[in-house]
Order: sequence, then C-alpha cells, then structure tokens
Amino acid sequence: MRLDNNAICLAKGFKASALSCGLKKGARLDLALIYSEVPAVACGLFTRNRFAAAPVEICKKHLKGGQAQAIVVNSANANCYTGLRGLRVAGNTTGYAAKLLGLRETQVLVASTGIIGRQMDFARIKKALPKLAGSLDRKQGSKAAYAIMTTDTRPKALTKKFSAGDCVITVGAIAKGAGMIMPQMATMLCFITTDAAIEYHALKEALKEAVDGSFNAISIDGCMSTNDSVIILANGLAGNRILKAGQKDFLKFKSALKQVCGRLAAMIISDAEGATKFITIAVSGARNDTQAQKAAFSIANSNLFKAAVYGENRNLGRIVAAVGAARIEAGKQIGIQCSSLKKKSVSVKVDLRVGAGKATALTSDLTPEYVKINAGYN
Amino acid sequence: MRLDNNAICLAKGFKASALSCGLKKGARLDLALIYSEVPAVACGLFTRNRFAAAPVEICKKHLKGGQAQAIVVNSANANCYTGLRGLRVAGNTTGYAAKLLGLRETQVLVASTGIIGRQMDFARIKKALPKLAGSLDRKQGSKAAYAIMTTDTRPKALTKKFSAGDCVITVGAIAKGAGMIMPQMATMLCFITTDAAIEYHALKEALKEAVDGSFNAISIDGCMSTNDSVIILANGLAGNRILKAGQKDFLKFKSALKQVCGRLAAMIISDAEGATKFITIAVSGARNDTQAQKAAFSIANSNLFKAAVYGENRNLGRIVAAVGAARIEAGKQIGIQCSSLKKKSVSVKVDLRVGAGKATALTSDLTPEYVKINAGYN
Repeated sequence: MRLDNNAICLAKGFKASALSCGLKKGARLDLALIYSEVPAVACGLFTRNRFAAAPVEICKKHLKGGQAQAIVVNSANANCYTGLRGLRVAGNTTGYAAKLLGLRETQVLVASTGIIGRQMDFARIKKALPKLAGSLDRKQGSKAAYAIMTTDTRPKALTKKFSAGDCVITVGAIAKGAGMIMPQMATMLCFITTDAAIEYHALKEALKEAVDGSFNAISIDGCMSTNDSVIILANGLAGNRILKAGQKDFLKFKSALKQVCGRLAAMIISDAEGATKFITIAVSGARNDTQAQKAAFSIANSNLFKAAVYGENRNLGRIVAAVGAARIEAGKQIGIQCSSLKKKSVSVKVDLRVGAGKATALTSDLTPEYVKINAGYN
Repeated sequence: MRLDNNAICLAKGFKASALSCGLKKGARLDLALIYSEVPAVACGLFTRNRFAAAPVEICKKHLKGGQAQAIVVNSANANCYTGLRGLRVAGNTTGYAAKLLGLRETQVLVASTGIIGRQMDFARIKKALPKLAGSLDRKQGSKAAYAIMTTDTRPKALTKKFSAGDCVITVGAIAKGAGMIMPQMATMLCFITTDAAIEYHALKEALKEAVDGSFNAISIDGCMSTNDSVIILANGLAGNRILKAGQKDFLKFKSALKQVCGRLAAMIISDAEGATKFITIAVSGARNDTQAQKAAFSIANSNLFKAAVYGENRNLGRIVAAVGAARIEAGKQIGIQCSSLKKKSVSVKVDLRVGAGKATALTSDLTPEYVKINAGYN
C-alpha cells in the first residue's frame, strides 16, 4: 500500500482531470472527472439519510445496470434538498458529460459535496465540462484528489497492487473527509478505480465488506451526511481471469480493498476538523456483532467521552454511561482498558463479558476548535 | 407559579435540611434530607441507562409500596458502577436514616449525583445523618436546593398553588441540571413535594405526563445519565377530596405539575454548561408523535446544528440533514422556520408535511466552553 496523490489513475486505462469552475471561491479546483477508457463493472454504496442528495439518486439509477465509465464530481455545493431543479442539474451533468465522452448517460455517475439546500448553477458546470473532458490524462489524478476536498487539510489518496496469476492488479482510491469539516459541509466521498476483471456480484460483496470495516466504522460527530458515496469502477484491463466469489485471487482482491478503505477511513479521522486525538474503540464480549457495534458507536458519539479525551482526562465513568445508554446486553461489571491519553493515538478496549460479539469504531476527540469551525468562525 | 428556593418546604407538612459531609471540597453543602411529617403517596421515574446507579435500584424497590416519607440526596458522587458495595452504601443510607426518623426502611428513598465509578465513603454519610435528621426545618428548603447542585450555577426551585374545593394545594419542586455540567458529572434530579391528597395511580399518571412534556423533552448533549431521577411525595395534608383520574381538580393538579416540571426543565437548559442559547425545536406534521419526537431529538442532538446556532450561522441544511438522519417519514420538501439567531432564545419550527404528529424538544447550543468544561479544564 502506498500513498500517491495520483492513485485514481494508476490502474490501467484510467484517466482524470480537474479544474476550477467557480463553485469554490478563489479559482480553487472544484470539479473533477474520473474516466475509464473501457466500460467498467461498477457499484456503489450511499448514504441512508432520508434527504439523500440529487446526485445520489442519479447514481443509484445509473448503477442499476452494474456498469459505468465516468464520474463527475464537484465540491462546494451538495446539490441536496434542491428538489426537481437539483435533480435536473445532476441529470444534465451526466447527460452532457456522456455526450462529450461519447457514452450512454447511464455510464456516467455524479457526486457532489458542499452546502445543502442551495441551488447549483448548471451554467458553470456546462461551461467547464468540455474542457474537463478534453484534458483527461493519466497524470491528473492528483488534481482530482484536490478538487473533491472541502475543508480537508490534505488530499487522501492510496494505491495497492497485488498479483493474480500472471497479472498485476492495481487498486487506487481517493477520498474526502467526513467530519462536518466546514460550515454547512458534511460529506464523505470515496472513488475507487481498479483494472481487475471481476464479476459484478463479487465486486459488490467486496465493496460492502470493505466499507463495513472502514467508512461505516468511523464517526466524527454522529451526523449522517446527505451525500456520502463510495463508488468503485473495475475495468478488467489487468487481464486477469475474472474474479468470482470464493476464489483465492478474489480473497486477495477483497483484502486489498479492505486495506485501502481502512487506511483511507483512518486518514479521514486523522484529518477531522479540530481533532487532536485519533481514537480506536474496540468492543468485545458482546452478545453479537450488532450489539458490539451499537456499544462502540455509543461511546464514539458521546460528546462527554470525546471532550474528556481532548482534556486527557481519564474518565471511565463516561464510557460506562455511554455503554449503558446503548441499552445492549452487558455484564454487571464490564472490562475497560484505556491507553495513555497523553498520546495522539488513544485506544479504548471494552469487554462486555456476555458473549463473543465484537466491533471497532474510530473517532476523534471533541475540541473547542471543532465547535469554532462548525460555528462558521474561520 | 413562583420562584422560591424554599419551594420544597412550602406544601404543608414538609421539612428539609442540608449540610456539608465532605463529599464536595471546601465545606460546600452536599447532603440533603427531604421529609414529610406524615406518610406520603410516592412514585418516581428513573433513567433507562443500563448501568443505573445503586440509589436508583434502591428507589425502585422501595417505591413498590407506593408510599414514602423521606429522601436522602447527596451530590459529588453518583454511587454508580460501584457494584454490590455501592448497593450496600445506598441501602445502609436508607436504613440508618429510617432508624433516625423512626420510619420503615422502604419509606426512605435515596438519590445521588456526581462522579461515576468511585466508591462512596459511607462513614461520611453515617456521621452526618443524625445532624441532618435533627435539623429538619420548614425553612431549610433553600439549603437542600443548593446541596443537590453539582456545577449548576444557580439553584432551581419553583412553587405553584391552586384551589381544589375549599382547599389550597401547594406543589413545590427543586431540580439540578442535566447537561454533563462538570467533568465526570452528568445527572438530572428533581424532587417534588405536594400536600395534595391523591390516589396512587392518578399521581403516577400525572407525573408521567409532566415528565414526558418536560424533562424527557430536553437534551443537552444526548448523553443518557446513569442517575436521572424524578420523585414526587404527596402527603394529603391539604385536606382536599382525594384526587382521582378524570376529576376536574385532578386536571388542575396535572396542569400545575406540568407547569412546574416544564419550567424547571427550561431552567436546566438555561443553565446548561457553556450554553449561550436556549433552543426550542417544535416539530409538526409528522406521521405520529413518536416520529415527531425522533425528528426533534435528531435536531436537538446534532452537534453541527448546535454549533451553527452558537455561531449565529443560519444553516437550514443542517436541520434537513438531521431530519433525514432520523429516518422517519417526511415530505419531499419540509417546512423550516427559524427565529433570529442573534437572540438568546432561538425557536425552530419544522413541518414534516405528512401527518398530524407533533413534539417539542428543548436544547442549548454547543460551545467551545462546553468542551472546555467537559475536558476538565476549569
């Protein structure tokens, strides 16, 4: 596994481009295009928020065929809670991009992150798309990693290679941080490209498992975004024997995907707004994994616990209270271990002492800086 | 309705006392006794946290008879997550107080608030109880209101009178604030005394309704305490015809109790640690009241929304995201009204546009000061 800002273009046949179309202030990159030279097997996982953004709706529709070739992503405007007009903007974006790229509209996906409830100016997108499509390049992945940032302080891009038979398969991914990072902004996006040849259902299974163990295990403030999207394109250009569920090489693929997503999730937590601590909460001994996850998130979302960690204030009572509030089964006395709070990385282990269920949640501390950032002060 | 720190002693036949037994630093009041000269009909409502504190367990047991005459309350130690030893301390407290007051043990209740997970020194309580019992007085209610405080900045005490036939019924109550007010402290306590003659089930119904509309409608940080307790004693000394469900005078009693609890809940929010805003969230148009309450609390517990209110940053998108995250039924477009954020009191009205369900939640803003207080910095 390797950090590489150009990660999204490292698998065979992938290109990217990015530019400033005026959604962000000050000519900063705010529109990106990710493109596969050939049709790719594709699937995605999206927010469960009831007010899912327009681009999420479009993606779900377009992904029904299990195939895509391009993704248009903008930052600075979430195109959420924008009604039919917002849906038209998202639809026009994929429609026009498809025309420029010579694709069917359903082969183009779209994602947005930024302010909720503000109409997006399609004129800006429309004006920018021809240039975006015209500047696709194998070396522009880094620009795309920057263009999807909101108040992330750094791009998040990772790549991993592994061999399958005589072939080398590459996985590359970029993400932008959750963590309600900027006033009115609140989304986690992740785009993954791979040249693996893989069967659709196997891809879906691998993505689900990787996301469950990574992006679904992190919480910065318990706020579920309207735009969260994880999308993977697998174009088959590595030339490997098609990966199917159960195969040895498929397990390798799953493992690679898990590692990439796990590390990106950790990078998101590390870059959480205002955070000074990286907190891992491992719950064991639960009745089952679901109950373990409830307990882990109850701790991860406890403002009291998170403020105590910020203050390096060893307060096991707050962990007990958070576990109790989750209302899951637990022994009368539970086991709690807590690493030194003086370090940047804090580990909390909780043993509920009733069964074999376990789960891990990652979070950051709650800091005055978090409040100031989200109050809109800087 | 009237503010009166001696509120708990204003109904006929009630006395109180308080002193410093050394649980708090610096000789501050930390132990109180509330006493009725005659047996009182009694009931209580308690936290649903799975790690309910020892005094909560004792109260539930003692209240099975529906009758009590005294309450011992301490601050500075929650006697929670203290195992069998903690249960013994709570039991010894009611046992010894009963002996001193000439009561059966089940007629004495106990409540604690303070640090979780630390054993309580019964020797201090034991030493103090004789003096506490010996100094019961009609004018010491104010001291009790102070003794139950943790980091509340002011006592919270209210009284209300109303007539029932030829009689005047008095209701008095004291409360201490929720709001995770101090490092390691996190509890809402409320004690209500009344001289109403009332049937047990009617009292229970009235208390439940009053608490649902008040203490159960407030959230400072979504953290469910281990010690939350609301206890009412009704000793019948007003001499009224016994109040029963459905009667006109019973409705008057319910109304008085609702007003007192509602105002105390608002006082708790106003005194929430670090808070600069008092926020009322009224949700209407839900499929039913339960869904309305889910939506209201999802907003009330959203760090993003609360930080935005602190910053006087008009951010309707965060309200939309919080409603969507509650995953209840809502129209495609919901109605959102928000009063000026410049004022201390902020009102948010959300119309979900699918039905007639409604609910109100009260909360405070999330401030850097909240984090600092709970980080243990001051």
